[in-house]
Amino acid sequence: SMNPDLASERQTASFSVEQLTAQLDGGAEQTRMRRAVVDTIQSDPIFSRENQYFQSQNERYEAAVRKAVHLQKKMREMGWTENGPEYKYIYRALSGDVAFLLHRVFMRSISVLGSDKQIAKWMPLSTKYQLIGSYAQTELGHGTYLQGLETTAVFDVTTQEFILNTPKISAMKWWPGDMGRSGTHTVVFAQLYVHGKCYGVHPFIVQIRSLQDHSLCPGITAGDIGPKMNFEHTDNGYLMLQNVRVPRENMLNKFCEVQPDGTYVTQGSQQINYLTMTSVRISLISDEVITPLMKACTIAIRYSAVRRQSKLKPGEQEAKILDYQTQQEKLLPQLAAAYAFHFINVYLQDLFDRGYREIQRKNFDMLPELHAFSSGFKAMVTQCCTSAVEICLRACGGHGYSLLSGLPSLYTKILASCIYEGENTILLLQTARFLVKCFKAASSGQPVPPSVTYLAAVKSGKCPAKNKLDFLRPDLYTEAYQHTAGRLISSTAAKLQDLIESGVKKHDAWNECTVQLAQAAKAHCHYITVKNFAEAVERLETKAGIQKIMKNLCDLFALHGIFSNTGVFLHDGYISGAQMDMVTASYLDLLAVVRKDAVPLVDAFDFTDKSLNSALGSYDGQVYQRLYEWAQKSPTNTETSPAYERYLKPLLHNTLSKL
Amino acid sequence: SMNPDLASERQTASFSVEQLTAQLDGGAEQTRMRRAVVDTIQSDPIFSRENQYFQSQNERYEAAVRKAVHLQKKMREMGWTENGPEYKYIYRALSGDVAFLLHRVFMRSISVLGSDKQIAKWMPLSTKYQLIGSYAQTELGHGTYLQGLETTAVFDVTTQEFILNTPKISAMKWWPGDMGRSGTHTVVFAQLYVHGKCYGVHPFIVQIRSLQDHSLCPGITAGDIGPKMNFEHTDNGYLMLQNVRVPRENMLNKFCEVQPDGTYVTQGSQQINYLTMTSVRISLISDEVITPLMKACTIAIRYSAVRRQSKLKPGEQEAKILDYQTQQEKLLPQLAAAYAFHFINVYLQDLFDRGYREIQRKNFDMLPELHAFSSGFKAMVTQCCTSAVEICLRACGGHGYSLLSGLPSLYTKILASCIYEGENTILLLQTARFLVKCFKAASSGQPVPPSVTYLAAVKSGKCPAKNKLDFLRPDLYTEAYQHTAGRLISSTAAKLQDLIESGVKKHDAWNECTVQLAQAAKAHCHYITVKNFAEAVERLETKAGIQKIMKNLCDLFALHGIFSNTGVFLHDGYISGAQMDMVTASYLDLLAVVRKDAVPLVDAFDFTDKSLNSALGSYDGQVYQRLYEWAQKSPTNTETSPAYERYLKPLLHNTLSKL
Repeated sequence: SMNPDLASERQTASFSVEQLTAQLDGGAEQTRMRRAVVDTIQSDPIFSRENQYFQSQNERYEAAVRKAVHLQKKMREMGWTENGPEYKYIYRALSGDVAFLLHRVFMRSISVLGSDKQIAKWMPLSTKYQLIGSYAQTELGHGTYLQGLETTAVFDVTTQEFILNTPKISAMKWWPGDMGRSGTHTVVFAQLYVHGKCYGVHPFIVQIRSLQDHSLCPGITAGDIGPKMNFEHTDNGYLMLQNVRVPRENMLNKFCEVQPDGTYVTQGSQQINYLTMTSVRISLISDEVITPLMKACTIAIRYSAVRRQSKLKPGEQEAKILDYQTQQEKLLPQLAAAYAFHFINVYLQDLFDRGYREIQRKNFDMLPELHAFSSGFKAMVTQCCTSAVEICLRACGGHGYSLLSGLPSLYTKILASCIYEGENTILLLQTARFLVKCFKAASSGQPVPPSVTYLAAVKSGKCPAKNKLDFLRPDLYTEAYQHTAGRLISSTAAKLQDLIESGVKKHDAWNECTVQLAQAAKAHCHYITVKNFAEAVERLETKAGIQKIMKNLCDLFALHGIFSNTGVFLHDGYISGAQMDMVTASYLDLLAVVRKDAVPLVDAFDFTDKSLNSALGSYDGQVYQRLYEWAQKSPTNTETSPAYERYLKPLLHNTLSKL
Repeated sequence: SMNPDLASERQTASFSVEQLTAQLDGGAEQTRMRRAVVDTIQSDPIFSRENQYFQSQNERYEAAVRKAVHLQKKMREMGWTENGPEYKYIYRALSGDVAFLLHRVFMRSISVLGSDKQIAKWMPLSTKYQLIGSYAQTELGHGTYLQGLETTAVFDVTTQEFILNTPKISAMKWWPGDMGRSGTHTVVFAQLYVHGKCYGVHPFIVQIRSLQDHSLCPGITAGDIGPKMNFEHTDNGYLMLQNVRVPRENMLNKFCEVQPDGTYVTQGSQQINYLTMTSVRISLISDEVITPLMKACTIAIRYSAVRRQSKLKPGEQEAKILDYQTQQEKLLPQLAAAYAFHFINVYLQDLFDRGYREIQRKNFDMLPELHAFSSGFKAMVTQCCTSAVEICLRACGGHGYSLLSGLPSLYTKILASCIYEGENTILLLQTARFLVKCFKAASSGQPVPPSVTYLAAVKSGKCPAKNKLDFLRPDLYTEAYQHTAGRLISSTAAKLQDLIESGVKKHDAWNECTVQLAQAAKAHCHYITVKNFAEAVERLETKAGIQKIMKNLCDLFALHGIFSNTGVFLHDGYISGAQMDMVTASYLDLLAVVRKDAVPLVDAFDFTDKSLNSALGSYDGQVYQRLYEWAQKSPTNTETSPAYERYLKPLLHNTLSKL
């Protein structure tokens, strides 16, 4: 039965939930297709995540392999393909809890880095799962700095083979998924040596396990790297190579080749490589970052509408915790952020598609902007969403801390997104490098990409707001964000310049500015996010109910950003102390407004109970009943512990001294 | 062997590590005793935490019970007692990974809430472990709001018994430790009814399991609440009561009693109760919050001194990541915070001891201040330290994400401290209520406790700093913190007053100010922490090397606080934009200074490798070797998975269709 406290929240929605869902999906047809795929997957018991919170790492791994194998069968049955429109819905339905994701990266690396001949040889084997691939780049001693990888591949001209070695312990491959226990092949990145000369890091296809009996191949040491904060389902592995020989043809050679006599030749443009990184960073934002935040908001907000605790007014019923201003201030900005990032993701996808089309036409002009965007937004969105999920978890008190709430696993998983595919600080500094370059160009009147033309006109000024309602004007707050981003970029560029002019060496000067450079890059991304959200709301004009609530969320996102970073807006007096009080007033007012639609706004994300896998977040709001029922199934209750017979009984019966 | 990158860090320490350790312990004699206790515990294999990261919840529970039972034996052998000076060192040596902690709370509640007769009956049984106790307060539906508890205890005058019931599912006791699987008795908090009249929540001793065979007693339903983010070693439990009868004597009756005829009488002062809460909150700050932060700093800083990644200057060796400004800016403020909170903890302990002595003399004057302090600092310190541990984890990249780093378990455990013993937001609002009251009193010339006398003189002003070096003056930055805290408290009190005067009802007005009230309470605690750190540094005068580095840390803590919250200092112009640039410059300069002593500063915390239980944090810095060795022991490597035979082999051998 439906919890009446949740039912009442839905009766007063100011907009059509179904229409907003279609808007988020990109159309009603997409909504229909998504629901059909999710339903097909979730009605199959093999894909169930029901016991996930009770399973060991070994059990999780086995279940993930089982699901991955079963998925192949299911996809053939359903006529779905890996490149079809269904795939993203499949992934959503499985919550990523499936093996062979690195096998997909293996295939992508061959299709991007391999010659036509290599593609023709390896892709059919991979597609038919006659091998299981992986991607062995990261080493124990090197993650972000790829040039520092220590694995070696020495060309032996007499046998026409590369000899791969792990020269020291820090050179051991460490972290690659699908490699610790499953993989038969992997792409190994190693320093190429020909005739004693090093040509830098190159990719080599290496078989690591027998296709017959799965035993390790000669010269291979491999295994699992052990327990992690999450990703128990993935066999992240290690790999050591001892004089492992692969034929010359196994170096992926679309861009560079070692000819039979050892001549090293490069061919084509490697710039497309950047596009791959860009593409991965942009695609993870949606699946691995925004979706988990939407789930966390759904769980925390539904729970806050059924949890009653203490009284707002003496003599009344206990209040829903969602009615406390402090709880609203925790959760509603995260909800607004989920929408803001949904819209920035649409924008980034669009930018990427345009860039991709240009690059197909051999026009690489957009690449620097695309790279800077994907780096900065990957860092900013993963960081904000990780914090947001943590806030949702903590806002649910003790019950949020139970794995059964679903929130701990969302948090421990999203946290990894701040680290993989580029560590966030390093990515922000890449964006900052682009921004400083553009700032200099723009200042000297040279052309810059459209997203940074504002850097040409950074100047002092004052926010024109006269009362708190002025801060609900998107043009006004977008301008404030733009001004602040511009100021941070220009002042840091000036500091850098001053240091260099005062005699500090360029690299030292850069290092001394990095804290502020990272801050400036974040401010730029924040500005673009606000601007894009405001523009997206503008375009929603025909759908009145939706536009209005989206406008509220956009305002909330923007004002929360100012309220939480007042210093950067106050610093040069662009916003005055009195105006900041108006921001605060408008911001707090908005909380009470958005609160009314909070539950419909999370309902619109349209997650099934099985997707949420949360005792607190289910659609019917029966949280206490579900916590109790789920706890019964825990191995701590279903298995008998030897602790009583061995330790407690002797203690209680005072036979302790005989122990 | 010692990693030379770590050895070199130790050669250049600007102070005596051993002297600083003694300072932290409160004297060289305490250091000696601590080391002896830690050594005794850690040399006993039963107390080993070596395999902890590989164990299931059931295994962790069994190990914790085994350790707790063994500890009793060990303590008798060594002549240690629960109230002796060794206990805190025992707890530190075990990292809290032991059962029966709630048994101790059971005993404390009897000694505080029980009559002399009850103490005489129950304490010997408890001390000798002829029963195992627990503390059943929290329910599924009620945590922070104790008055809302729904369990009932109805007095039956005919049998002279209380009849306890769980009237609905939300009334089920949920979370009590040592209750899910171990406990035989518990203190149940229930609404007392006599002759149909409710007298509010009272404590009752209830037996839940047989002392003979550990089976559940009649009318009792109990079990384990299942998986959590941490505390796998604790059997947090649930409890339902169905017409469970306990004799009249089982209501803990030091303060209130039901006489045989049903007459309800209160006696003595319940104020001492507040002192218990205060005492628990203050004691957890050290053991559960500061110690984990010190461990996280030790791990992250040692790792950052041996991890080399990328180059600061072209052509040079790869740089230690600790040499990057961004890495310093992540870690060193957390290190400074660990020291700041060490000193505030000493201050709070001292305040509590003074308060306790006064209360023994029936002088309750200090109680409101003590309560406000313990609430606010519990909230502020747990929140800051939780964030700090997360920063340490993230600063270690991928390896920090491995459980073998020790950081994930530190994080998932410290996170709970934000929730238990009072949810942080609620605690901050209690402090805010005290501050608003004091502000009003001070404004009208009435006497207030010494720590808040500054509220009498909140006025506008300007920071006198003229250059960046001025911001290294403790009097100057302490004044800035004081000014800001005063401004936030006075402006929020004014908003509250305005709302009420404009006709908003008192409770609504309070709710509308809570976001700002919580902020004001935090600012007050931050101010006191800075002030106390600066004063503590002053008192270190005779120990030159130590005073100097502590002064640097105090400056760093203070300036980091300004740098991270610029808005509150800029808001009214107390600090100008130009002055804020000086703060930033001084702050960034300090990072480079403190960085030189970073490793000695964490060495001074004096954790053994066994205490850290971290592949990244060991004293010798052999991180890669250790990660590799530890991973070998993981069940993902030592146990054979059925996944290959069942799923991978049929897939690879293309027998998929036959599955």
